[in-house]
Order: sequence, then structure tokens, then C-alpha cells
Amino acid sequence: MGPHPAVAAIRLAVRRVLHDVLTDVQRSSETDPPPPAHAPHGHAAHGDAPHGQAPRPLVLVACSGGADSMALASALAFEAPKLGVRAGGVTVDHGLQPGSDLRAAEVVARLTALGLTPVESVAVEVGRAGGPEAAARDARYAALDAAAERHSAAAVLLGHTRDDQAETVLLGLARGSGIRSLSGMAATSGAAGRYRRPFLHIDRQTARKACMVQSLPVWDDPHNADPAYTRSRLRHEGLPALEKALGKGVVEALARTAQLSRDDADALDAWAAQAEASVRDAAGLLECAKLFALPPAVRRRIVRRAAIEAGAPAGSLFARHIEEVDRLITGWRGQGAINLPGKVVAQRQGGRLVIRQG
Amino acid sequence: MGPHPAVAAIRLAVRRVLHDVLTDVQRSSETDPPPPAHAPHGHAAHGDAPHGQAPRPLVLVACSGGADSMALASALAFEAPKLGVRAGGVTVDHGLQPGSDLRAAEVVARLTALGLTPVESVAVEVGRAGGPEAAARDARYAALDAAAERHSAAAVLLGHTRDDQAETVLLGLARGSGIRSLSGMAATSGAAGRYRRPFLHIDRQTARKACMVQSLPVWDDPHNADPAYTRSRLRHEGLPALEKALGKGVVEALARTAQLSRDDADALDAWAAQAEASVRDAAGLLECAKLFALPPAVRRRIVRRAAIEAGAPAGSLFARHIEEVDRLITGWRGQGAINLPGKVVAQRQGGRLVIRQG
Repeated sequence: MGPHPAVAAIRLAVRRVLHDVLTDVQRSSETDPPPPAHAPHGHAAHGDAPHGQAPRPLVLVACSGGADSMALASALAFEAPKLGVRAGGVTVDHGLQPGSDLRAAEVVARLTALGLTPVESVAVEVGRAGGPEAAARDARYAALDAAAERHSAAAVLLGHTRDDQAETVLLGLARGSGIRSLSGMAATSGAAGRYRRPFLHIDRQTARKACMVQSLPVWDDPHNADPAYTRSRLRHEGLPALEKALGKGVVEALARTAQLSRDDADALDAWAAQAEASVRDAAGLLECAKLFALPPAVRRRIVRRAAIEAGAPAGSLFARHIEEVDRLITGWRGQGAINLPGKVVAQRQGGRLVIRQG
Repeated sequence: MGPHPAVAAIRLAVRRVLHDVLTDVQRSSETDPPPPAHAPHGHAAHGDAPHGQAPRPLVLVACSGGADSMALASALAFEAPKLGVRAGGVTVDHGLQPGSDLRAAEVVARLTALGLTPVESVAVEVGRAGGPEAAARDARYAALDAAAERHSAAAVLLGHTRDDQAETVLLGLARGSGIRSLSGMAATSGAAGRYRRPFLHIDRQTARKACMVQSLPVWDDPHNADPAYTRSRLRHEGLPALEKALGKGVVEALARTAQLSRDDADALDAWAAQAEASVRDAAGLLECAKLFALPPAVRRRIVRRAAIEAGAPAGSLFARHIEEVDRLITGWRGQGAINLPGKVVAQRQGGRLVIRQG
């Protein structure tokens, strides 16, 4: 008799990602220069490999102790040895509740019990920049990056599920800033594709079930139910109401929208990058007549690129800013200079669109 | 003292659209052949214009008697004469409630009282194809098309507001079929741009307010509050819950998403149309190697176009169908033929993607 379907599903998802990681490791070791002759032990030391043999790559799981990441840890612990991969774990202590350090120690014990090694807890200090959710996220990723570097990990697995993806799409939708913000989380992200999300097609219920049938104790993050957090309100009120109105397929539809939007945004970005060269004059200035001839979707992306290049912070540059600059091209009637975030100024001069820090 | 801000807003929106309509009428009369010499009265008859003068164009408003379309009718009645445009109205009696004919007669009386002429009520028979909402919509547009033809109207104005647009985006999101379905309703649509939606940037509250301050009686369509209708559930439960979770700007963000998605989808469709010729061999068959080299977003659009061209009904062709066909290109391991809606079959043969009715 095979494992429970929920356990089979999470293992399959992890197995696929480990295969991808191994392929990437192999590819990069073929192109990497061999270790220098004067440091013969430097390379092998990372992987506990016998002298002269290639080290076994290490894959870490980022685990909060919640059901999603505990399910992920259990699947990693099961699959990694079969593929010659070492499996380790990191838990981040955000220090936001009293006793969070004990909680983190408990997660370390649970990961160790699953057979993961190395396992560590990293305490971080959460700042305030961008609001509580963004600040916690920034601190968490900085800690995970550092842990990955410290252990020379080939990858860090994150437990985001299809439900998390659906929530992320709705959060992006609320920004109203176009399809890039609808594209949710990538299956692979970070420097050199460090972060992998094996569960983006797995629903939260399956992760929960997999923990239950494996008798894994899980911990519910109190933030997940705190109505002060946008994502929590979305999870507990927004999405259920949307499902009630539109039917049960909403989460799946949102996740699919993420994938399609990501591909579309990538293609349009590539088009804009390519078209940009053709709309600049000999002095490198953007020619309004040539911009005008492009499809609006491509033109606005070029304008956005130019504004960011001039120093406008991407996160503060909204669709309405780009629209206003676009009207210098499409609705020219002698408008004055337009102020953009980051003290960047856009104006039309002699048929050229000039965007620079003022 | 000027009009109430709500009234000023709806009038401005209508004035802008009437300007566009007039520009289009002028443009088409410049390119149209002159009326044949043996029918000197045929042309002028449409516009009640004195003999030998260009006829005044007629713009119709489609009016249910609800606040949105009554506000639209009032703004049309006010603005049209100032621009030399005749203003008329049509109300569609769907025959779905007892007494709907009396209701339609009442709307005719109200439109006539606003000074519109001609005004007519058209009774339609609502079928069942595609569900109650789609069937009612199909019958309504068929009736509006016929009325526009009958009166040689230059345009038909529709009262869809920004709130309707937001709902339409969410309905499209629930299909999970990509950014085209997120692009909502177009400001201009139908044969030769017949339908115009002046209120896509006006919120429902403004339309209501405009009716109130003008003492216009309005009628609430019972369907709008009937929880059996998806759109009604969305309006009264889904969207409010989403606003509660994400903030009041959600409707505006959704409407902006519609516009951005439409432009993006248009640009990618144009790319796919252009790229399609370059991926066909001398016999006109799609070459898998060339398709593989395209961005996924462009490749999948070419596959979709080919499936529709082969006879697959666009409305039944879902993202998962296209994904499966796409794997014949990106993940070829000898798969068999793939069945698509409309008895269309896709298969890979000798490095070519063959899609045809089987």
C-alpha cells in the first residue's frame, strides 16, 4: 500500500523540484572553473563528501512550524536521501511575540526529528519599513539568504501553496498596476534561482492533511488569523466571500492567472527592452514620434523603464504616473514638466521625451 | 451656479463620447461614396435634415430605467442638442417578470419626458443558451443591434459604470483564462464601434446621485439583487468583502487593471498574428522547433488561434487545453493526439503541429 494521496502529492512536488535543483547544480559545476590547485580541500568540505568526490548538494527548507512548511520539511526529508541530496532546515524567529524563541527551538527539534541536518534557528530584528508584513518579510529573506550562503546551500524551499498564490494575486490586483503585479510568486526566484516553491500547485488543505496523516504536530502562526494584517483579512473574509459568489474554482483560477500573467508580462518586457533601442535618436534620446507608433502596452513599458533608469523607485511608480507621461506622447498640447517619484522629471522637448533626475 | 458635481461629471463623460462619435461620423462620410444620383432623398431622410444638407446623426441610449442608464439618458438629452446630435432611446423588455411590458412602457414615457426622440420599447424572447445571464444579454444586444440598424443610429450608449467594470474583471478572473478575460468591457465595441460606454470611469454612486438631484425616478432591476445571479452575488457580497479586506480603492484598481490588461492583450495578439506567418513551413504547417523558440505567451496565442481556425469554439477553449497542446511542443515524449472542443484534434507529426477537425 502506497502513502496517503496527500503525502504522495507533496512528495511528488518536492521530488520534481529536487530534480530541477540537481540539474542546475550539475550544469553550473560543468561551467564553473575547477577548484584552485592550492586549496584542494576547499571544495569538498561543503558536502561532507569523501576526499576527491563531488560534494552532495544541500537543500534547506524554510520552516515556520506551520502546516505548509512542516509538510514541505517532511517531504524533503523523505525524498532528499533517495536523490543523493542533503536536507537541512532553517526557522526564523521574528521575535514578534513573547516566547517566540522557545517556539523556534521547538521547530528546530521537530525538523531534527525528521532527520534534517543541519537545522538552525535564526533570530532577526523586524524593522518598520513598508508596514509590518513587508518588514517581517524583508527580515526573513535576509536571514534565509545569509543561512543559504553560510551553508553553501544549492536551494531553499519555501512552503507557499496555491492558496497563498491566490491571495498574492488579489493583493496585486488591489494595486491596479497591471499584469506584472498579478503574476504572484514565481516557482523559482532570488539570486541564481535560490528560492523554490514546490507547493504552488498544492492546496493548503492537502498540506494540512499530509501533516495529519503523518502525525506531524503543526503550529498555527497567530499572524495568519490577525485581522490587522491585509493578507489575513483576505484569507478569512475576502477569498471565502469571493468563492461564495463565484464558485469553488476561484483559487485555482487565480493561481492560473498568476502563471499566465507572468508569461505575458515577461514577453512584453522583452518586447519593450528590444524596442527601446529603436526609438532612441543618435544622442540616445527617446523620439516621441517613434514611441507614438508603438502599441500602448509597449510604449508605456519603455516609459517606465526610462523613469526607473533615471532614478524613480520602481515601487513608487504607479500606473497613473506612466499614463501622465504617456500623454506627453499621445496627447501633446504643450504640457509642462511632470514630476515623478525620486525627484525625477519628465518633459517633452523638441519632439524628444526627456526623463531625468531634476 | 453650475450643475451639481455629479450631474457635471455625467454630462462631461457623455460630451466626450459624443465628440468621438461626431469625429467618426465625419471621417466615414468623407470616405463613403456619395449617395447615388437616382435616390436623392434616400440619404437625408435618416436625419430629418433639410434637403441637400448633411443629416444630423442619431445617438440612441439603451435604458433599463435603472439609475445608471437614466442618468446616461438625462446627460444625452442635455448634451446632444448642443452638438447638433439627435438623441433617442431604446428600452428592452426581457419579458422575465410579470408586468415587464408595463415597466417598459413607463421607461418609454420617462425617456420621452426627457425630450428624447425616437423612443421605443422592444420586446425580446430570452432563450436558455449559456445560462440566464448570458441568454438575456444575447437577446438584449440582438434587439439593440436591430434598433440601431432600423434607425440608422451612429451609436448606442450603454450605462455600464466603473463598478460594473470591476465586477466584470472579477468574473473574468474566475475563469482563470488569462489577461484577455481580465480586460472587462471596452469603451467602444460592436460592429463599427457602435456601442459606447461613457460611464466606465464614473462610479455607480455618482450616477445615482445625478438622478436624485435631477429628481429622476429610477427603477431597481430585481435581477440586480437576486442571489441566483453570479453578478448580483458579486456585487452584494463578493466585492464588499474584498473592499473590506483590501481597502476602498479596489473598484478603481480593478477598472484600471481592465484597461492595462486590454492594452497588453492587444499587443500580444498583434505579436502572435505577426509571428504566426514566420513559424509556418512552405506547406503552411506549424513548425514545432520555431514555435519552441518563441516566448510562451506568444506561442500559446498562436496555438489558440490555430485551434479556433480549425473550428474549436473560442468560448469552450480553456487555458488547460492550450497548455496540453503546448506540451506537444515543449515536452515532447511521443504523446498521442489531443482532443479539443468542437471535435478538433491536435497532434505532432514529423516536427509539425497539426490541428484540424477530426
